[in-house]
Amino acid sequence: MTTATATIKFLRQPTTNAWLEQALAHLDTVLLDHAQCERKAAGVALSLINRYPSDAPLVNALTVIAQEELAHFAQVNQWLERRGVPLRPLPPPPYGAKLREQVRRQEPYRQLDLLLVSALIEARSHERLGLLAEHCPDRALGQFYRSLMASEARHYGIYWVLAEHRFPRQQVDDRLGQLAAAESEILANLHSEARIHS
Amino acid sequence: MTTATATIKFLRQPTTNAWLEQALAHLDTVLLDHAQCERKAAGVALSLINRYPSDAPLVNALTVIAQEELAHFAQVNQWLERRGVPLRPLPPPPYGAKLREQVRRQEPYRQLDLLLVSALIEARSHERLGLLAEHCPDRALGQFYRSLMASEARHYGIYWVLAEHRFPRQQVDDRLGQLAAAESEILANLHSEARIHS
Repeated sequence: MTTATATIKFLRQPTTNAWLEQALAHLDTVLLDHAQCERKAAGVALSLINRYPSDAPLVNALTVIAQEELAHFAQVNQWLERRGVPLRPLPPPPYGAKLREQVRRQEPYRQLDLLLVSALIEARSHERLGLLAEHCPDRALGQFYRSLMASEARHYGIYWVLAEHRFPRQQVDDRLGQLAAAESEILANLHSEARIHS
Repeated sequence: MTTATATIKFLRQPTTNAWLEQALAHLDTVLLDHAQCERKAAGVALSLINRYPSDAPLVNALTVIAQEELAHFAQVNQWLERRGVPLRPLPPPPYGAKLREQVRRQEPYRQLDLLLVSALIEARSHERLGLLAEHCPDRALGQFYRSLMASEARHYGIYWVLAEHRFPRQQVDDRLGQLAAAESEILANLHSEARIHS
């Protein structure tokens, strides 16, 4: 089995079959984690608004993203309720913390890195939700994943454009290449617990 | 001039004419601060979801509130753009920090206090947006404030109901009385800078 859909341009390495098998074997856990991912994504967008409060185009774009992440959070929670899965917090995989370690502390590099790390997370989510959409044995749940894919794709596009409007194109491309390599490296060893970013 | 609309049941003391005069003299500043209030309110709802992630009714109710706060944030930012006011951060008045000092650290008291403090902030916002709706010289802006009032009222109702479903009624009433007294005390001296909660 090859994961032929996994050809997102930004991502250095496609997701492995091992991740897909782990996820399909633990769909409820992945849904619980997915809810947390949507909530955290809304929080990240809000924190960027808070950090760059005078940048109106950024504020406006990220407000839309935060609203959409919250709408998805609500939808995933409805799926959990429908499947009879009680809400509970899950320990996150190392993915988020390790990506945050890549963010440089000094401006303007911090802003560039924050935007590109968010773009990469959205790109990876797009790829993996696509795999779940294609392979999920529950057709209705698969359809739900498919419905989210377009938003994830749009979000990584928005983060990329925000970066590209604020930094020279070559600088964006170079840094994106470095961060994409780090992102794939972080995922090279499958995390022991099923997660969206295990 | 009396602020006759300022008869919100939860609030110990109505807003003074001094606040209204200060706000009307600095409408753009109040709008900038209002945007920050909406963003912060979304953040507070998200942080409560994060703190009580297994409580599905609370998570669902606060997701709706966070979505509405973000929609208002976007609307206020559109008003700022229409009036040609560049986005910029403002130092907050002492209100929020002083209210947070009232929150007890130990559960379950912390949860009760967090819900009731949010209820009080929404109640005060409802009252003050109502005053702006009534007295704003820009009729269209006044109409906008009026359109937000119902949401603020609904939000304080939701926070109160969340408290009332999790704690004995007498405990909620007693603590609300204490916090409402503290809230009015904090606002007793008008802050030198025009703010929603100056």
